Amino acid sequence: MVTIKDVAREAGVSVATVSRVLNDNGYVGADTRKKVMEAIAELNYSPNEVARSLYKRESRLIGLLLPDITNPFFPQLARGVEDELSQAGYRLLLGNSDENIQKELEYIQTFVQNNVVGIITATNHVDYKIYEALDLPLVLLDRASENYPAVYADGREGGRLAAKTLIEKGAERITLVKGPANIKPAQDRFQGAIEELSQADVDFSVLSTTSYSFEEAQGWAEELFDKFSDTDGIIASNDIVGIAIIHEAMERGKRIPEDVQIIGYDDIPQSRLSYPTLSTIRQPAYEMGREAAKLLIRTIKKEPGVEQTIQMPVELIERKTTRKE
Amino acid sequence: MVTIKDVAREAGVSVATVSRVLNDNGYVGADTRKKVMEAIAELNYSPNEVARSLYKRESRLIGLLLPDITNPFFPQLARGVEDELSQAGYRLLLGNSDENIQKELEYIQTFVQNNVVGIITATNHVDYKIYEALDLPLVLLDRASENYPAVYADGREGGRLAAKTLIEKGAERITLVKGPANIKPAQDRFQGAIEELSQADVDFSVLSTTSYSFEEAQGWAEELFDKFSDTDGIIASNDIVGIAIIHEAMERGKRIPEDVQIIGYDDIPQSRLSYPTLSTIRQPAYEMGREAAKLLIRTIKKEPGVEQTIQMPVELIERKTTRKE
Repeated sequence: MVTIKDVAREAGVSVATVSRVLNDNGYVGADTRKKVMEAIAELNYSPNEVARSLYKRESRLIGLLLPDITNPFFPQLARGVEDELSQAGYRLLLGNSDENIQKELEYIQTFVQNNVVGIITATNHVDYKIYEALDLPLVLLDRASENYPAVYADGREGGRLAAKTLIEKGAERITLVKGPANIKPAQDRFQGAIEELSQADVDFSVLSTTSYSFEEAQGWAEELFDKFSDTDGIIASNDIVGIAIIHEAMERGKRIPEDVQIIGYDDIPQSRLSYPTLSTIRQPAYEMGREAAKLLIRTIKKEPGVEQTIQMPVELIERKTTRKE
Repeated sequence: MVTIKDVAREAGVSVATVSRVLNDNGYVGADTRKKVMEAIAELNYSPNEVARSLYKRESRLIGLLLPDITNPFFPQLARGVEDELSQAGYRLLLGNSDENIQKELEYIQTFVQNNVVGIITATNHVDYKIYEALDLPLVLLDRASENYPAVYADGREGGRLAAKTLIEKGAERITLVKGPANIKPAQDRFQGAIEELSQADVDFSVLSTTSYSFEEAQGWAEELFDKFSDTDGIIASNDIVGIAIIHEAMERGKRIPEDVQIIGYDDIPQSRLSYPTLSTIRQPAYEMGREAAKLLIRTIKKEPGVEQTIQMPVELIERKTTRKE
């Protein structure tokens, strides 16, 4: 491949001079400029290589695709990604897909057009074909994969842990809130909880929901108590829904955790401020973001022996919506 | 200025062929490529112009600088900015400054290096000198300015409205939580509340705080009730602090709103899920983001008669932490 040194030699000037011409930066006489341009032509040093070299120095962009940053789980992920990337000199191009495939495709196309050097995606509608065609380092975040490097928390274990906790703490009529069907981590934790509940000597019901939105969470909470009014243990689909359920239980005069225990999922910052504070299964969102960024950087740098998959641990955070043993 | 058409004419090829050479996209024979490169050299069509033309088509990047996206007010702003920009074909480079000047400078430098066509900043430590030197369209978001286009909500009016509401609803020993001194909108709303309280026939106290963080909010709430245990009306510095105050009041067995009324600021999505739900002063964060993006796009396009400043209205959202009249 023809390099800037070859161009400098051919033109009989220094590399710095070629660089000044390339960057239009600093004074270069018209004759010298012409000599450099001719050398570029002679050597077939393509303008695209020029552009690429400019980019190489100037573009250290990473594309980050999220479902929706207004869900409080994702700002934590994004900050983790950003903090790690920015320490390493990379910058973040952000897109929210709203789990809409069309938006996801558009963002990926513009990421590529903007010469990102890698992509981190936390969406659930991934069209693998596009990603296959990309030829760019890619890391999946908040979802497992056999085809791509991925950083995710152990959702199945998290679901099991939530169910196990309520069973151990004496809940006998458990309601399990099933999160949106199209969101893989929601289904993982649901499956984990179902496994644990099925093996236990306990009655349980499932409330099926289709979103994590703040706007709709209150509705799910109302529906839950309308349908399963005597439930004494609720496994929420995430903390937002858990906080809405606390609110609805309080509205209905239920004592927490005496009449009903509630366990959330995620450990978003808000869950420590609800009344009562929400017991939950913690996913280390910020750390997951950092790990995904590290993994991507190692992949970009083609470091040998980079692990393909990082499964992060989940943990029970006991606050006041579950009983003390 | 030499254009791609001049290069095509000189090389005796079509513009499409020149474009294929420039983009290294599609088959171009070695001879044709050489002819195009020679024409580029002959006409002194500088590689930087090539790069610029690549950028012109490919870079429609906008830099967005936020204090911290994990504060739930900012994802709303960011979504508003992104939704508007992406409709117009622009993409978002995101940076969180943590109100740290060094980080702010680094982000602005890399925004420029990545050829952003404009910047939106919601930080409070703006070093005007850098922005002056930028020569790039700039819109300030969530802060007023006489020097730059700005989109912000009427914080002073919001503070007045919060104080007026508590006074009208019968609070007699009001505690005003003063937000971080270095955050301009926090001081605007504080000043508005002070004005209103000073004119009224009411006792009041001020609790001075230095952050909006989730981690510290619980501490401010405890300090508040330790110092002003008989307060019957609290104007929180924002909704996060308001939700922490609800939690602490409930912990201490106070009835809300009978014993103590609480009013927040922002109307983040969480405030409708607290128990009791938080009355607050709403800033239209999402709409502010959209307006800032529109203003920036109009400025980039050099549309005539673009307004310099857009002040958005605030409004009282009455929920259950204030008394019904």
